[in-house]
This record gives sequence, structure tokens and C-alpha cells, in this order.
Amino acid sequence: MHYSFNTIGVVHSCFKDKFGVPRQPGLIAGARGEIELLPPYDRAEAVAGLEAFSHLWISFVFHHCLENDKRLSVRPPRLGGNKKLGVFATRATHRPNPIGLSVVALDEIVQYRGGIHLRVSGLDLVEGTPVLDIKPYLPYADCIVDAKAGYAQEPPLSVLKVDFSAEAQKGCAQYEQCWPGLADLIESVISLDPRPAYSRRIEPERVFGICLYDLDVRWRVKEEGVAEVVELCKVV
Amino acid sequence: MHYSFNTIGVVHSCFKDKFGVPRQPGLIAGARGEIELLPPYDRAEAVAGLEAFSHLWISFVFHHCLENDKRLSVRPPRLGGNKKLGVFATRATHRPNPIGLSVVALDEIVQYRGGIHLRVSGLDLVEGTPVLDIKPYLPYADCIVDAKAGYAQEPPLSVLKVDFSAEAQKGCAQYEQCWPGLADLIESVISLDPRPAYSRRIEPERVFGICLYDLDVRWRVKEEGVAEVVELCKVV
Repeated sequence: MHYSFNTIGVVHSCFKDKFGVPRQPGLIAGARGEIELLPPYDRAEAVAGLEAFSHLWISFVFHHCLENDKRLSVRPPRLGGNKKLGVFATRATHRPNPIGLSVVALDEIVQYRGGIHLRVSGLDLVEGTPVLDIKPYLPYADCIVDAKAGYAQEPPLSVLKVDFSAEAQKGCAQYEQCWPGLADLIESVISLDPRPAYSRRIEPERVFGICLYDLDVRWRVKEEGVAEVVELCKVV
Repeated sequence: MHYSFNTIGVVHSCFKDKFGVPRQPGLIAGARGEIELLPPYDRAEAVAGLEAFSHLWISFVFHHCLENDKRLSVRPPRLGGNKKLGVFATRATHRPNPIGLSVVALDEIVQYRGGIHLRVSGLDLVEGTPVLDIKPYLPYADCIVDAKAGYAQEPPLSVLKVDFSAEAQKGCAQYEQCWPGLADLIESVISLDPRPAYSRRIEPERVFGICLYDLDVRWRVKEEGVAEVVELCKVV
């Protein structure tokens, strides 16, 4: 059997590219974005009462992983990328049906440009993510304090200390007004070491770029356990 | 945009009909069932490592609610059915995309009839529910202890005291060997008062039927706040 679903909303995120997006929601409280509701759901009526809830479940499509994927096993990054697990024992983005699930904090419901936008934080979704459903988070049903979670019991540790070059500090000061919390966001994103497990070598000359808001954040791993933000370039 | 997904599994549940299914997961620990994985996912490989997790998220289809529903508001049973809320502020089964989300306890992974069956409990799904995805529950990401949830902060109270007639007690004794925990399950299901909000009157002569396993459990509300299980009939 197959079922067909329509997009009811789209995510606008501080993360403009896949690279740098946290691997679970809630890891970076300052990761902000909006869910724009699409017609015919772009009306206050569709979210009446939602303001009483602090958190939401978003069911979405992993739109960067739309190949028709029949793989049964994946290699989760949490295990260093060298151990295979069943696809249903992981939250890998490549899955039989590319359906994702994230809980985010609901900060504000705003109405502008004639539509409804849900301002959210703790986001782990990339710009343009198609949304299939939004449900309120119910702590009595959803919060299982003593759940056992094998290899993923604890959140991933921040693994990189993050320094800022003089140039990068200047950039942060310049853009902080436009994007409050920018330096903290950059530090949080890079400290989780977004590099794929297979490329976690120290290559001080190799510069990575992460797109946050309208900025290309250029950074490198300068020594064991220490990253440096090199510069912030406006994306034109 | 629309997206098409294939069923990866099917639910076999103690609840054979919609009537009596708890309105959220986890309300009845003794509500048991299995998820049968469908080809090509009916192999141990697809769930390798899952045994380390105590709980699972199931993304599924509300297959009893497949009308193409564009309603923006619903009347949640928790509010007595007489207050309208936005569809995204509730977990109503009638929603823009009929996608459901339940967390269940994973009790055992068993291999029989050449396939893989996940034995689960705390279930709120009806027999035959099509499953779209299974993901491990990650407490560090999914458990938000201090989440605010407006009108649904607390679990619904058990609202009916449940008595058993002599006939029903005999039935429970007879079928308990086949369905361990049967009397407790019946009591839990009826105590939540599964009647729709609009029909919660006292009509001692009106007998309701709930299908649990292969039994039709016949019960009535005999006085204010008190139900009586009348008899258990084998469904042939």
C-alpha cells in the first residue's frame, strides 16, 4: 500500500544548507526558524489554541534524501560511521520513507504577509524542509524519563573548542544586530563537529563553510580538539 | 507538493475496532500488540540494534480517517467536544494529512512465520494500522519534562469505576489463560470512558461492545460514574 500526502507548511531556518544542521532537535536552543503554513492552512483558525503549548512535533520530509531507498542497514555517525545498525534502530535521514520527526520549542505565532508563521527554536531542520504535520507536544504521553536508548542514551558531547579569529570577531560584531545570538549559534554549531565521521582529521589548511542565515561561516580545525572561525562572508 | 510513501509494517493490536482505543499512547500499559514488518523490511537486519531501546516512535496512517480532509478546526474530546480548536493544536485523527505518531514500549523482537514482529505495549492503535516508519525514542531529545501543554497538561482521569457481573467474571476467568491481563485491560479501557463526549449520558439499558482480541466485551453505564461489564462473547 502507498499513501500520498500534501505539504502543509515549509521551514525557514537559520541553516541554509545541510552541512552544520544538528543531528537532533533541542541540541542548540539558539537555532531558530519559522514554519510558514501554506494554503489553505495559512489562517489563524488552523492554529487556534496552539499558543498554550510550549513545544511542537513536526513531521517533515527529508527532501535532500528522496532517492527511493531500500537499504536495511545504516552506519550512524554516533558510532563513528563504522558500525552497521538496522535502519529502524537509528534516526538516519536515509530511510525507507523519508519522514522526519522533530520536537521544537514554539516561541511565537505571528501573522504577516497575509499568512501564519510559527517561530520556533531548538531547530534541526534545513531551509525549505516540507512539513507534513504539526502536533502539540503532550508531556504526559511523550516524555518517558526512564527510557533506555542504547548507544544514544546521552546527547552528543561538544567535541570542539571554538576560537574566533580577529576577522571573525569583527564579522560577528557587524552582523550580531541583524542576527542576535549569532556568535553563540556559530560556536554551538561548530562545537558539535558537523564533519562526517570519515573526515575528522586535523588538516589546518582545510577550510569548511557553513551557511547560517545569509552568511557563509568559514572555519577550520587548527589542532586536536580546537576549531577556529576564520571569517564571515555575506552570501550575495 | 505531494509525497508518496509505502507501508513498511502493519499493526496487530488487542484493539480490533476503533471504539475503545485509548486517545493517547502509554495510558494503558497492558494494551499490547505487534508490528509486523513487511517485505523487504521483514528481516533481522532492518532492526539490528533496536533491542537496546526501550521505546519506539511509530509513524502511521489513520486509515479509518482517509477522507481528504481540509478542515481547519476540530472539537477535541478532552474539552467535552464543544470547543473548537485549530487542527494543529490538537492530536485529532481527522487532520490535513492523516499521519499519526505514537510512542510505545518495545517488549520483545521476535522472528516467526519467516518474518520480524516487534512486540509492543502501551499501544493506542487499532488492528491493521499501516506503519510508515519506526524510530528509536531518544530521551535526551524527546523528553521535555517541563513542556507546557495547555488543556492537555495532565493525562485524562479514569472517569468510570468498573464492576464485573458474575457472567463477566466467569468470562474473564475462562479467557485469562489465553489473554493474560484481560480483566485489567478491560477495566483500564472502560474506566477511560471511550464513549464520545456527546453520548455520555446514563442509559443503564444501553449496552456497548468493545472488541478486545477475539472477544466482544459488552458493558453499560449503570449509574453516575459506574460501568458494569455485562458479558464477554467470543467473536466467531
